Amino acid sequence: MDQSYSATAGFITTDGGVVGQVDAARVPRYTEPGTFARLPRFDQVDAADVNILGIPFDTGVSYRPGARFGPAHIRASSKLLRPYNPAMDVSPFATQQVVDRGDLAVNPFDIEEAISTIDTSVTALGEDGASPLILGGDHTIALPMLRAMRKLHGQPIAVLHFDAHLDTWDTYFGAPYTHGTPFRRASEEGLIDLERSLHIGIRGPLYSRHDLEDDSRLGFSIIRTDDYEVDGTRSIIERMRRRLAGGPVYVSVDIDVLDPAHAPGTGTPEAGGLTSRELLHTLRALAGLQVVGADIVEVSPSYDHAEITGIAAAHVAYELLSVLAANR
Amino acid sequence: MDQSYSATAGFITTDGGVVGQVDAARVPRYTEPGTFARLPRFDQVDAADVNILGIPFDTGVSYRPGARFGPAHIRASSKLLRPYNPAMDVSPFATQQVVDRGDLAVNPFDIEEAISTIDTSVTALGEDGASPLILGGDHTIALPMLRAMRKLHGQPIAVLHFDAHLDTWDTYFGAPYTHGTPFRRASEEGLIDLERSLHIGIRGPLYSRHDLEDDSRLGFSIIRTDDYEVDGTRSIIERMRRRLAGGPVYVSVDIDVLDPAHAPGTGTPEAGGLTSRELLHTLRALAGLQVVGADIVEVSPSYDHAEITGIAAAHVAYELLSVLAANR
Amino acid sequence: MDQSYSATAGFITTDGGVVGQVDAARVPRYTEPGTFARLPRFDQVDAADVNILGIPFDTGVSYRPGARFGPAHIRASSKLLRPYNPAMDVSPFATQQVVDRGDLAVNPFDIEEAISTIDTSVTALGEDGASPLILGGDHTIALPMLRAMRKLHGQPIAVLHFDAHLDTWDTYFGAPYTHGTPFRRASEEGLIDLERSLHIGIRGPLYSRHDLEDDSRLGFSIIRTDDYEVDGTRSIIERMRRRLAGGPVYVSVDIDVLDPAHAPGTGTPEAGGLTSRELLHTLRALAGLQVVGADIVEVSPSYDHAEITGIAAAHVAYELLSVLAANR
Amino acid sequence: MDQSYSATAGFITTDGGVVGQVDAARVPRYTEPGTFARLPRFDQVDAADVNILGIPFDTGVSYRPGARFGPAHIRASSKLLRPYNPAMDVSPFATQQVVDRGDLAVNPFDIEEAISTIDTSVTALGEDGASPLILGGDHTIALPMLRAMRKLHGQPIAVLHFDAHLDTWDTYFGAPYTHGTPFRRASEEGLIDLERSLHIGIRGPLYSRHDLEDDSRLGFSIIRTDDYEVDGTRSIIERMRRRLAGGPVYVSVDIDVLDPAHAPGTGTPEAGGLTSRELLHTLRALAGLQVVGADIVEVSPSYDHAEITGIAAAHVAYELLSVLAANR
Amino acid sequence: MDQSYSATAGFITTDGGVVGQVDAARVPRYTEPGTFARLPRFDQVDAADVNILGIPFDTGVSYRPGARFGPAHIRASSKLLRPYNPAMDVSPFATQQVVDRGDLAVNPFDIEEAISTIDTSVTALGEDGASPLILGGDHTIALPMLRAMRKLHGQPIAVLHFDAHLDTWDTYFGAPYTHGTPFRRASEEGLIDLERSLHIGIRGPLYSRHDLEDDSRLGFSIIRTDDYEVDGTRSIIERMRRRLAGGPVYVSVDIDVLDPAHAPGTGTPEAGGLTSRELLHTLRALAGLQVVGADIVEVSPSYDHAEITGIAAAHVAYELLSVLAANR
Amino acid sequence: MDQSYSATAGFITTDGGVVGQVDAARVPRYTEPGTFARLPRFDQVDAADVNILGIPFDTGVSYRPGARFGPAHIRASSKLLRPYNPAMDVSPFATQQVVDRGDLAVNPFDIEEAISTIDTSVTALGEDGASPLILGGDHTIALPMLRAMRKLHGQPIAVLHFDAHLDTWDTYFGAPYTHGTPFRRASEEGLIDLERSLHIGIRGPLYSRHDLEDDSRLGFSIIRTDDYEVDGTRSIIERMRRRLAGGPVYVSVDIDVLDPAHAPGTGTPEAGGLTSRELLHTLRALAGLQVVGADIVEVSPSYDHAEITGIAAAHVAYELLSVLAANR
Repeated sequence: MDQSYSATAGFITTDGGVVGQVDAARVPRYTEPGTFARLPRFDQVDAADVNILGIPFDTGVSYRPGARFGPAHIRASSKLLRPYNPAMDVSPFATQQVVDRGDLAVNPFDIEEAISTIDTSVTALGEDGASPLILGGDHTIALPMLRAMRKLHGQPIAVLHFDAHLDTWDTYFGAPYTHGTPFRRASEEGLIDLERSLHIGIRGPLYSRHDLEDDSRLGFSIIRTDDYEVDGTRSIIERMRRRLAGGPVYVSVDIDVLDPAHAPGTGTPEAGGLTSRELLHTLRALAGLQVVGADIVEVSPSYDHAEITGIAAAHVAYELLSVLAANR
Repeated sequence: MDQSYSATAGFITTDGGVVGQVDAARVPRYTEPGTFARLPRFDQVDAADVNILGIPFDTGVSYRPGARFGPAHIRASSKLLRPYNPAMDVSPFATQQVVDRGDLAVNPFDIEEAISTIDTSVTALGEDGASPLILGGDHTIALPMLRAMRKLHGQPIAVLHFDAHLDTWDTYFGAPYTHGTPFRRASEEGLIDLERSLHIGIRGPLYSRHDLEDDSRLGFSIIRTDDYEVDGTRSIIERMRRRLAGGPVYVSVDIDVLDPAHAPGTGTPEAGGLTSRELLHTLRALAGLQVVGADIVEVSPSYDHAEITGIAAAHVAYELLSVLAANR
Repeated sequence: MDQSYSATAGFITTDGGVVGQVDAARVPRYTEPGTFARLPRFDQVDAADVNILGIPFDTGVSYRPGARFGPAHIRASSKLLRPYNPAMDVSPFATQQVVDRGDLAVNPFDIEEAISTIDTSVTALGEDGASPLILGGDHTIALPMLRAMRKLHGQPIAVLHFDAHLDTWDTYFGAPYTHGTPFRRASEEGLIDLERSLHIGIRGPLYSRHDLEDDSRLGFSIIRTDDYEVDGTRSIIERMRRRLAGGPVYVSVDIDVLDPAHAPGTGTPEAGGLTSRELLHTLRALAGLQVVGADIVEVSPSYDHAEITGIAAAHVAYELLSVLAANR
Repeated sequence: MDQSYSATAGFITTDGGVVGQVDAARVPRYTEPGTFARLPRFDQVDAADVNILGIPFDTGVSYRPGARFGPAHIRASSKLLRPYNPAMDVSPFATQQVVDRGDLAVNPFDIEEAISTIDTSVTALGEDGASPLILGGDHTIALPMLRAMRKLHGQPIAVLHFDAHLDTWDTYFGAPYTHGTPFRRASEEGLIDLERSLHIGIRGPLYSRHDLEDDSRLGFSIIRTDDYEVDGTRSIIERMRRRLAGGPVYVSVDIDVLDPAHAPGTGTPEAGGLTSRELLHTLRALAGLQVVGADIVEVSPSYDHAEITGIAAAHVAYELLSVLAANR
Repeated sequence: MDQSYSATAGFITTDGGVVGQVDAARVPRYTEPGTFARLPRFDQVDAADVNILGIPFDTGVSYRPGARFGPAHIRASSKLLRPYNPAMDVSPFATQQVVDRGDLAVNPFDIEEAISTIDTSVTALGEDGASPLILGGDHTIALPMLRAMRKLHGQPIAVLHFDAHLDTWDTYFGAPYTHGTPFRRASEEGLIDLERSLHIGIRGPLYSRHDLEDDSRLGFSIIRTDDYEVDGTRSIIERMRRRLAGGPVYVSVDIDVLDPAHAPGTGTPEAGGLTSRELLHTLRALAGLQVVGADIVEVSPSYDHAEITGIAAAHVAYELLSVLAANR
Repeated sequence: MDQSYSATAGFITTDGGVVGQVDAARVPRYTEPGTFARLPRFDQVDAADVNILGIPFDTGVSYRPGARFGPAHIRASSKLLRPYNPAMDVSPFATQQVVDRGDLAVNPFDIEEAISTIDTSVTALGEDGASPLILGGDHTIALPMLRAMRKLHGQPIAVLHFDAHLDTWDTYFGAPYTHGTPFRRASEEGLIDLERSLHIGIRGPLYSRHDLEDDSRLGFSIIRTDDYEVDGTRSIIERMRRRLAGGPVYVSVDIDVLDPAHAPGTGTPEAGGLTSRELLHTLRALAGLQVVGADIVEVSPSYDHAEITGIAAAHVAYELLSVLAANR
């Protein structure tokens, strides 16, 4: 019975003892191991360099809900990922121990309790130095992630934020903690590096011109989606690397940075977005920057089709893991 | 009970008395006001600068029907639009009074009666100088729209036509008025400016080489989708502005100008189309040209998924409204 | 332009002045009036006998969210309803003034505030004696509905509850107000008639045998789905009428009382449910009982297909309106 | 290359020379022969007893269009049909020559021309005595079918009409020929037997009580869907056989007679319908009655899922073919 | 971090040490534990009474493939199952240790090797007396299951087979081992009890009258779907219990026994099937019979919608687990 | 009855006797001819220059199956193709006789037999010099296609392979013939020109760095998807033409070369792919090269939406037919 999914026998293991994926030449990919990219669970290894953690929470959304099913969907969409990344010439599951920690249990009925649970749990999880890669969940979770990062790294963190939206709004219906407000709260709380934070992929209508003024004051510069159309990817990568250099970087990827064609399964879609090729290409250029953690949020499976969105999100995670591996 | 959707209390109103959208910070976006972009109905304001009007008619289609449900779908897909357009630095709902006039009741069983109803109604609607923004419906409606425009403006109108197809064919099964023939009829009737009309986004197979010869004779020049691939958006915008300058312009956007990835919900899809980003970028470049009316047609919701097509169409409408606002 | 949707000209009006639906022989059904069954808005009539009100709230759900889009979906699915109900020989839109009040704006980020808004608004709305017919939204809203009913009618109300689930559980993650707990709270608060309340359609696994004991103590008797299989509809109708006779009845229909084949678009589906025919047949048998209000909840459109669920919900509303009409 | 689909080599042929289906034990079912149930085309046999003919016409619909794609969809959904019907102990493809005549080309832009084409073509096709089995298309086509039947059989025909709706309405927007009016026109034209015609499956709201009076005067009696719930299938079969005995019968099956759960892919769905089991069971009881032709209409594929509706329609056709075979 | 999914801390555990589901009052149901009904993996308990095992194999299918994704889909659809079954008054996860053994790795490119892997693995798994509950996969797997059952129980086994199809055909394209032939092979190999085996739910066309004769000779009697329509569930249950009494019973549930409305996500759907209510009701009546193992097969997720089919399959599994519990 | 689909009367025929498509101005496009682009069947013409042949085989897939339904789906998605290709100024159906040969019957249960059937049939089909255009099926079929090409042309063939994946892997679960291995087998068998073969569109993770070394040794050079992002289409076309010049070329298009946004309906999707516009543009640049045959594989309809993938595949076929026509 060692074919059954929990058997460590199926994993590819390096000489150095790193436990990788279940071997696809022996165990078909549709065979359930349940984990991201068929990687080991945390109880199947001794220690982790990167913790993949799902946070199935979507009570902070203002429009289409459903991102609570995001972690399960991204995992299901990640089964085709293979161990070697030729675009970066790295093997992200062989040179660092990546584990799937499963999902965090957070209260859907109390946003503040949820934020507190995330902050506490992620902080605890990072105390041994492992990097978090979060599968959301809505964007509310970026706030407790940044609280944890701030504590773990002892300094404000540069935020690289891929999104159609600024997410630096103030309140909705009086609520300060929602998926549209995490970076305003984070800036107010001193969690982010005001000189080095950056949005990429902004597009679509805003509430007013003041949104942009506020956003700038809160520490962000902006690369718009239109800049890809006009300037091309190479120029954007240069601007991005210049802005982020010189300290720790947290990467937050709202999947709605992609065009609805590339990511229908999300909560607040905006036409005119990035292609998945542009996004993956841009992410690879993070190699060499000091990435300390990341999240992929706002995947809402009931609006997805044939895992288009889930696969894009899984590839985003894969490139981020490759960046972490390249930096080791 | 003033939270319920008809209450004007929820609208954002300018000092000048322009009634804008229902305020999303007080009334959640999924709360039904039913109108495009949650704008006021015509009975909720005193006068209008722009009339949004649905024309749920699809009896002119030759392949997949369903565009009769297009107006409702575009409205449902427009709820995330916000009041400020940073790409053009305009507030399209604040500097002009935009209203949703609802849908025109047109006879699905008699194409000629339908055309007559549209012509008469749109002409009447424009007599006070307000611009029409039409939510189709199939492309047949462009003919009565141009009849009305011709009458209202007293001269032939330049047509800027975004489409995969020429729509200058002659007849199908003997029928002169269909979604494939409006611009031939319009040209024959002297409605369009033969020196300034333009197709953008043409691609895919034709019936014969004569189609191109006829089309040219009928007054159109052509920018192909492939020109975006080869020449880039900037060059296209220049050609477009040169062609359209010097008089009134009617903009007709068949959503199938987009690639099926960006607009699956349409009746005669062709591979190899524009991205929604290219289309929106091109539309913004109309600022300064004398746009007098516009339509967005061929949205067929039963083939859409997760409002991909509806959202693209809503954004097309938003950019067109912004162009109108920028020109005031 | 009086064809456009707000025009009262399109409505069928009785001699008695009751304003009915937009006339489908003159205005095609897919033409947008936006309202339930193409009925008038409240600002288009003088007074109402029945208020249809959407409550787009789903923060109380424990599994699949999305019922916040329920009211819009049920309205879109109601366009085929016609004015005469032959099964009951009543014309529900001609003998009573039914209006669509639109949606209530409720805060998605604060359950208790939402409950309070609903209670206050529905109470205010009922003060002139009109009956509420609510389009949910998740089942949390049954609690404020019963608070309002209790106040308006000055006595505990019999609850007729169609559902796969008891919804008399105590708490989830410590939260007292969720979609699984409204009837326990209502019973504790003295809102319901402990001798006359009834669940119909219960099936599927429970947490423990105590659930049944608690439920009984809280005032409910139970007709299981299996009773339809074993005893037939006629017998169930007799039991139902016997239990409910003798006072005001509030009808709460969770659409998951239907089998997932008949209602895929819901949040916590259970196999083995009612057919839509059984449900509609049962509802008609309420004629003669003192129905004072009703809700239809847990329609989650992103899981629906081709409006199967929305149409079932619209027909449920239609039968309930017919019961109200029959009782006048 | 005789495996390719046109090869007669793949067909099962009886001793009597009847050419049946392509043999599923040698040619996989998903292999394209393109025809209904993988039966021969008319050019592959000498003569036909039953002509299957598609009529892809849907310009008569008042709500969701798309039935123009019905014939292709029903064919695609018919590939699992096998040659022996155990419920009736007949082999419908062995004791009569059934052929697929393909689709009739009818003008979508002119309803009266379309009706004329159908009438002429079906009359011509029946002159050698073969029975027509029509795959629609919308219900408008029942009128020219009955005109042809009347001519071919020299007498008024009893109509057995399965539908949620009466289809004896008068006009929509002034149009006399639509999918809601064929049986009124047919009755007015003297095409149907006023003593022996019958609707089965009627349910849902009507326009007024007069609809029922008119319908009765036009020659129909009614078995409601609710009668299945209350009386059971056996009783209904008896009533049906009694009503239809004594002369030629034309069977017209609007797929919306089924509940939306069993037939989501249709144009005017009504909750509370028949199950496919009830419908098939009822159809089998036609054996022995003088069935002279039949249609299956209103299958609208863009609203179907996983061929639920298409498979039901294909089985309806199969049972009708079996009835024809049983009667030989 | 003990909220993450592998933590045993989340499980409900009885005094007797049986480890049940993750507690839904503390860990939201959409939180990933990945296992069937959120039950423990085999490495989280000491021993098992029932092994749930996925067999993701679909190379034996003759029409729509995809059942290789069946086990993952049934698990995803099982998250709402709760611990107490009121219809049988048993707690299936408390009185026996049920574990999810994950999926078996079987070769998709070699049917005979796959059959051998299944036989060997299931036999090994049953040697300590635990019962298997298999999540398929296509129906080919019933053959190696019966080989294993025969060996483990030392006698031929009665087969209770729910299916639209007989599955006692001989070969397709010369292949003896496919999803249409397992019970013929099993009968030929002496694995099944020829006096006590039974099909339930048979319907639709066959290849010829000989299919029935062969089937009877191979040891089966038949209850048709139509018997439910004509005789009712009670009568069927009596016939079933009479046929199966007196020895070990293996239950094989092809999900296509359900109507396509109730199970669109399957490979060879036939109209006119059972409702999920009928199937679950029938399964519960197995309590008291000597059930030794079971499978649920032919769930093909890419054809499912909103987990209609997956939920039905999960409930089938739940009732079978309850039968096993009731028999202890 | 000559409107019915088999009638040659409907076809557009050239003076030279070439039989083209059914005329869309007389026979609506949704009218069933069943063939690719409504072209004639092989029994409707005297001889063929190009044979379109479906190979509905998918037993070689390692992940999502379903490409067995690919040929039917591509045909259904090809109905909008018109006779003149303006991008290349050719009429592909007028200057060469293109026929639809239907589908090959291949055994789904035995991969080696299937490969042998394909090889034999395609070789026989090509003996009169006609070119094959294959509609798959999975990529396994490229091996027998290359065997046939090698025999028919008497020399190794350059392979132009569009794909996200190399398909030069060795074995899965010990199986040498699968959809991941055809080009390794073809290279080992001496079927391909080692100096002129080329992959275009490679992206995503591999198993290891050795994959690239093996691939190069087996005769391929690589143009990555990222090269489109960085270098642009013009540069890629030059590299492609340089590599392929000087001898016969076989073109194999795995539809997963497209981004999942442009081709959701496929078996092993990878984010970051080509747009359909890039692919069609690149294919047109093959004019002048000696293309001897082609396939379009891995279209898996149950994962497609609104024919996005099918239409892309149909356009790929159209451009390839145009290349063949341009070369005559």
